[in-house]
Amino acid sequence: MLLLRYIDKHKEEYISILGEAVGIQSVSASPAKRDETLRMVKWTAEKLEKMGASLNLLDIGNQTLPDGNQIKLPPVIMGSIGNDSSKKTVCIYGHLDVQPAAIEDGWETDPFVLARKGNELFGRGASDDKGPVLAFIHAIEALLNSEAGLPVNVKFIFESMEESGSKELDDLLNKNKYFFRNVDYVCISDNTWLGKTKPCVTYGVRGLSYFAMEVKCSSRDLHSGIYGGSVYEAMPDLIYMLNTLTDGNGSIAIPGIMDDVRPLSEEEEHLYQDIDFDVAAYQAYINATVLRHNGNKTKILMARARYPALSIHGIEGAFSDPGEKTVIPGKVRGKFSIRSVPDQTPEKISNLVIDFLNKKWEERGSPNIFRVDALSNGRPWLSDTSSPNYQAAIKATEHVYRMKPDLTREGGSIPVTLTLQEVSGKTVVHLPVGASDDGAHSQNEKINIRNYIEGTKLLGAYLYECSRV
Amino acid sequence: MLLLRYIDKHKEEYISILGEAVGIQSVSASPAKRDETLRMVKWTAEKLEKMGASLNLLDIGNQTLPDGNQIKLPPVIMGSIGNDSSKKTVCIYGHLDVQPAAIEDGWETDPFVLARKGNELFGRGASDDKGPVLAFIHAIEALLNSEAGLPVNVKFIFESMEESGSKELDDLLNKNKYFFRNVDYVCISDNTWLGKTKPCVTYGVRGLSYFAMEVKCSSRDLHSGIYGGSVYEAMPDLIYMLNTLTDGNGSIAIPGIMDDVRPLSEEEEHLYQDIDFDVAAYQAYINATVLRHNGNKTKILMARARYPALSIHGIEGAFSDPGEKTVIPGKVRGKFSIRSVPDQTPEKISNLVIDFLNKKWEERGSPNIFRVDALSNGRPWLSDTSSPNYQAAIKATEHVYRMKPDLTREGGSIPVTLTLQEVSGKTVVHLPVGASDDGAHSQNEKINIRNYIEGTKLLGAYLYECSRV
Repeated sequence: MLLLRYIDKHKEEYISILGEAVGIQSVSASPAKRDETLRMVKWTAEKLEKMGASLNLLDIGNQTLPDGNQIKLPPVIMGSIGNDSSKKTVCIYGHLDVQPAAIEDGWETDPFVLARKGNELFGRGASDDKGPVLAFIHAIEALLNSEAGLPVNVKFIFESMEESGSKELDDLLNKNKYFFRNVDYVCISDNTWLGKTKPCVTYGVRGLSYFAMEVKCSSRDLHSGIYGGSVYEAMPDLIYMLNTLTDGNGSIAIPGIMDDVRPLSEEEEHLYQDIDFDVAAYQAYINATVLRHNGNKTKILMARARYPALSIHGIEGAFSDPGEKTVIPGKVRGKFSIRSVPDQTPEKISNLVIDFLNKKWEERGSPNIFRVDALSNGRPWLSDTSSPNYQAAIKATEHVYRMKPDLTREGGSIPVTLTLQEVSGKTVVHLPVGASDDGAHSQNEKINIRNYIEGTKLLGAYLYECSRV
Repeated sequence: MLLLRYIDKHKEEYISILGEAVGIQSVSASPAKRDETLRMVKWTAEKLEKMGASLNLLDIGNQTLPDGNQIKLPPVIMGSIGNDSSKKTVCIYGHLDVQPAAIEDGWETDPFVLARKGNELFGRGASDDKGPVLAFIHAIEALLNSEAGLPVNVKFIFESMEESGSKELDDLLNKNKYFFRNVDYVCISDNTWLGKTKPCVTYGVRGLSYFAMEVKCSSRDLHSGIYGGSVYEAMPDLIYMLNTLTDGNGSIAIPGIMDDVRPLSEEEEHLYQDIDFDVAAYQAYINATVLRHNGNKTKILMARARYPALSIHGIEGAFSDPGEKTVIPGKVRGKFSIRSVPDQTPEKISNLVIDFLNKKWEERGSPNIFRVDALSNGRPWLSDTSSPNYQAAIKATEHVYRMKPDLTREGGSIPVTLTLQEVSGKTVVHLPVGASDDGAHSQNEKINIRNYIEGTKLLGAYLYECSRV
């Protein structure tokens, strides 16, 4: 196939363009880096326009910071290439923002300078999600340059607040339903394979309910020598509250939270037994002494994707640097989140969590000031794998990788999935490019050159298959 | 007295020099700011040499960072002005380093630019301890410029790692005992008054035992979507462990820790009843809903100075920024410290804490990797207030402020106090310059112009009184 050869020929160019993208520090969580995030939007828009896309940068308003100040949210790119009513229309989604990263966190190289080592490309966003977004863009470009041209019309949505809860995106998409009127298939490439070698097609993701609970003992930070002993400190209160969230085994200790988890059928359990998943490699990557569920493959797969989990992420307002600071923090915010699954809803999870914590706070009997806030949330999602969209994704994988992909559910949360399904009224498929050890959200994030280049072919082949199913 | 008038005349110059000092970001806890700390040492040494001091910059070796790298520790300035064997010799101590500070922590102005607002001077180190160090230097300069000249020989020790546990200082002073051979009195100005208006002379400080406990679940940070549910997370383990340190009332829950606290005599209790201490103002400054011990004056004074207290300072390695990061931290370190009092010893405190936590960790039954480290520690100290050194400090206060100072104990830890007492074999007095609301270690640290200028007079008068007692 000429497409595949074309892509191979442009390999070095594609790597160099990924380097440009990684060099833009589009950390959506960091207000100080908002300019960089805006620059990433502009950079991508220019690239798309050069390919002949017609597009819009949709303003989604301002973000209110904790101090009350407001900053501009990065606009969402929505647009299309091709407008031939005899062709199918595929809508693709990706995000241009990245997780925070700093060399002090333990990166071996500058996270914002793409570093090529052997067959790997290291840098923040290399796999999540700049690499896959560029793979899509380059696949379209390659098809446009082919003799037959682009086999489908492509519509695209590239947002830049995904790592911060996709602020305002649901609202925007709901207001722009007309954009989806002729869309046949929706495809997202923002997760990874289950392992390092076998590709997969993903039909389910968990939801995410993110919370912050705040304890305030003073309107300022205090010197622990001068004040220690005389004040009811905020930190022990917050620690006590965080300690109520899970039991000693890591299970969620909030009553009622498991009630809406869809029961496991025998048939479903069999599905998991057939998936190619290397528990030993998974554990070795983490370097954990043991995994939960005794490292049982089926149970681990289900624990990370079809059951909820609670993680405590950290504390804002306390001393977090190396060294010794003798401070009594005046106001501290503990961050935690719950990954949710069908048929849980964010509304019920929020209610259960907030009621539980308010009750625990009463039991604590502290005179300090407590509040708990439900921050962003995303609903869990499951799709029907028998639809043509899935057939196109499976065929494309077989064509490029010469193997049948596993059908998987993903533990991560891609809240936009369900929204895209609802506003388009069509099926959504997740067609990942990266491998399981890419380290999204971690230090030393990377993408394998093979995944990046074959992934470009995969997404091109997918668009081609969409024109035929 | 001519000295007092001389100091009044130089007020603006003294403020401007404090501005220079605050502008040097000598944050000893921050390896990235080590150059600034070194610059502060050099700046001070040049100032002293201009006054005719003979001095030495004593190398105290390197600091090993958590990553194994080494950086140079800032040298300690030791020197003297005057060498007249017919005069008494006073040794003064101060520190040139400061606590970390950043505008994002909630400062109203740049912490490293001295901001004058009404009668206050805002900036990191304004009160702790650059202001008092400069008050001492300017007092000496004023006396040198007086007709009678400097009435005593002055020896000085200015270190720059005080906010990071005075690394290597004990060792250095013990190796340089000869420096103290002719010292008669030792004076430190590194604490504050108990209130905002009445000066005090301080005869006791608490010790400090600083700990870090570490839990590791993975050799890297993990994405909570991809891994949540399959790993035993480090954060809940650390939270559980931190929660064992204190009871719901804020009392230390480590068995045996109170055994060595010296019993309270009836006579001592009376002393506290006479101290001028405004509980309402103290509470208003903190802006706490209630204080511990029902806000009882005597009990609050004792809780903050003659009884131990445990504070949890924060967690290193977890997510601490604003926003939402969906990370499972791989390795987290919880920092806490105990303020100790006579007759507790750092050795016994360390043993009790470490044994207790190791036992609690066993009870937790987690497969993760745990360790607890005793970091820097300082011993508590009490002095004899009937000695001539105290009489000089009291008379100087009466002379400058026209009132009798309270004799107080301090809740903060100035570990060098006991070392100076031991290597010199003489009494040590703490003669504070700043007021209780200066916000050392907090946001918007300041010193009142009155305290800074009258404090310069106070330290000058103290040196004068030392020549007469």
